[in-house]
Amino acid sequence: MLNFDYYNPTRIVFGQGSIAQLDALVPADARVLILYGGGSAERNGTLAEVEAALGQRNVQRFGGIEPNPAYETLMDAVALVRRERIDFLLAVGGGSVIDGTKFVAAAAGHEGDPWSILETHGQNVSGALPLGCVLTLPATGSEMNCFSVVTRKSIQAKLGFSSPLVFPRFSVLDPVKTYSLPPRQIANGAVDAFVHVMEQYLTYPVNAPVQDRYAESLLQTLIEIGPQALANPQDYDVRANLMWAASQALNGLIGAGVPQDWATHMIGHEITALYGLDHAQTLAIVLPTLMHQRRDVKHDKLLQYAARVWNIHSGSADERIDAAIAKTRSFFESLGVKTRFSDYGIGAEAIDRIVAQLEAHGMTGIGERREIDLAFSRRILEACL
Amino acid sequence: MLNFDYYNPTRIVFGQGSIAQLDALVPADARVLILYGGGSAERNGTLAEVEAALGQRNVQRFGGIEPNPAYETLMDAVALVRRERIDFLLAVGGGSVIDGTKFVAAAAGHEGDPWSILETHGQNVSGALPLGCVLTLPATGSEMNCFSVVTRKSIQAKLGFSSPLVFPRFSVLDPVKTYSLPPRQIANGAVDAFVHVMEQYLTYPVNAPVQDRYAESLLQTLIEIGPQALANPQDYDVRANLMWAASQALNGLIGAGVPQDWATHMIGHEITALYGLDHAQTLAIVLPTLMHQRRDVKHDKLLQYAARVWNIHSGSADERIDAAIAKTRSFFESLGVKTRFSDYGIGAEAIDRIVAQLEAHGMTGIGERREIDLAFSRRILEACL
Repeated sequence: MLNFDYYNPTRIVFGQGSIAQLDALVPADARVLILYGGGSAERNGTLAEVEAALGQRNVQRFGGIEPNPAYETLMDAVALVRRERIDFLLAVGGGSVIDGTKFVAAAAGHEGDPWSILETHGQNVSGALPLGCVLTLPATGSEMNCFSVVTRKSIQAKLGFSSPLVFPRFSVLDPVKTYSLPPRQIANGAVDAFVHVMEQYLTYPVNAPVQDRYAESLLQTLIEIGPQALANPQDYDVRANLMWAASQALNGLIGAGVPQDWATHMIGHEITALYGLDHAQTLAIVLPTLMHQRRDVKHDKLLQYAARVWNIHSGSADERIDAAIAKTRSFFESLGVKTRFSDYGIGAEAIDRIVAQLEAHGMTGIGERREIDLAFSRRILEACL
Repeated sequence: MLNFDYYNPTRIVFGQGSIAQLDALVPADARVLILYGGGSAERNGTLAEVEAALGQRNVQRFGGIEPNPAYETLMDAVALVRRERIDFLLAVGGGSVIDGTKFVAAAAGHEGDPWSILETHGQNVSGALPLGCVLTLPATGSEMNCFSVVTRKSIQAKLGFSSPLVFPRFSVLDPVKTYSLPPRQIANGAVDAFVHVMEQYLTYPVNAPVQDRYAESLLQTLIEIGPQALANPQDYDVRANLMWAASQALNGLIGAGVPQDWATHMIGHEITALYGLDHAQTLAIVLPTLMHQRRDVKHDKLLQYAARVWNIHSGSADERIDAAIAKTRSFFESLGVKTRFSDYGIGAEAIDRIVAQLEAHGMTGIGERREIDLAFSRRILEACL
């Protein structure tokens, strides 16, 4: 096992009816800004329910945070926070709203150019407004971690930052709030959570059986419940388990003490920034191909994954690895998330552009051993066509 | 899944050499009291290493916290803390030292009788000194939770309390520090961690696959590494995995959203208070018998445990359950922890005394459905002879 430092102070308030607990969770004298995305939180009554729970507090709203939250939009929220002397942020939505809210929390009191928060990946964050979350979309794990990814549309850049100062103080997870989500968002969420686990699991063995088995627990659960979540949108337990699995997939726990990859995400971010694909779609394209191209360095873990997650025990090592990769790809496809560039109308001309963006963002040595250079990224991308 | 509230702000600093990080973890101007147990922390150099890391801080020592930490001893530490205006407590040891330190933290500023902290199980704790831990014995999980158990020798009572105010600010886990432990303590630690998991797992199904699989992950890992930890005391990875599994076993995670039992612990505490057996010894006596006596209400989970943890798939349901219970008992015995009262020289005359203590401490309806009354506890105890 590798040495590690694990810290996660986010309180999780989980279950049906838990939005009512906001009154106890948000300071009584807070000046609150509710941040949210499109109109669904408004239409389905969640915003009203949140505001009712907040009672007599001074509460304002900021809507319109888009998927892959835009720096430009978030800076409008920063201006509002400063103008209105807001002192508590409440994100109501999914990963994009929560990521955006984390950026607003860090940027509101930041001296100098807020874009530098992203350029330094959070190194220069020295303070942040307190924030809480009401999660409505299980996927990114942002409700229980200190990571955030922001897109600057004007320069087609998608960059992340992290800081312990932007851990949510609490996150309220009510599975009922996911019932009205479109199937595409549920499918994307399951794929996103699955790939989060894989980034922390499918590297090389370091004799960390608890972390390995925890990761396999999440993968097995997602494989079980992903299709059920689509088939039975109002099955409370299925939605509850999807929500909890997605939070667990990226809260720091399964990655503590083990190597981590994240090359799929790094490449995927560039695809979204250039072509606007959903985050999960990019992961579904890149991961199976990356598994294939990196089968030599991931050999031992690929075999473990085949055996323990997919119950594949027969055939040569290569055959078992092939079967496990094929299972992974069909799992994504079975949820309706396509796994080839061609499925999205993207051709070979995209590859130069994506590689150029990887270079521009310093992604010249990625993966668990930092050995995926631009030439190797190109090889992966070519195999994704 | 049941509704839940999960919160665990303890930072874990894990790995070889991590004691050196104390300098960054303890406030620079702190007046520190190091609390420890017998002389082993002194003899093996851990105390000196801790003090060296703390540098120029004002540091004092309080040694002699015994296994099953005594209220009487801890009140001496409380007096020292008050006299010397200590403002940071650092526990160096295992679960008893950490439990004791949590009590000192809560009692130091407590107005009124500190025993009331235990009588109210922590309900009346309104403040606590900050505390950190240097763990030297993997077992209880106290390094990553807000629970504490204290024994008052004068009245043979062993009572617990919990309060979010006594979560350690940090815990330093260096597996190397466990190399010199006596085999009995390693064996006890593995049994203790195993039973902690079972208390949160072996109840009845509530469709919580992540929690179930996490619990099974820990059980399988403990079964694998328990014997190795005894056979190869200086195998770093084995000790690291034992340490991490034991912390995970009782940090609130696997018990979030599922029913919990704890009857084995409630009965075991009375045995320790009356007869001085090691905590883990009492658990090893009670658990297998309780599994047998409660096989009707635990039926579904017993079958799941048999299949997933012990790979028992053949035979009737009753046969598989019997086999799983027998495997559990032999696992404890294989570590050298005996599982019968008679192994410890305790006879039938003990039963009236234990039942009387359970009654005196209000343990008249325990277990996951609160249906183990005194008569049923007696039945379990009789079957432990």
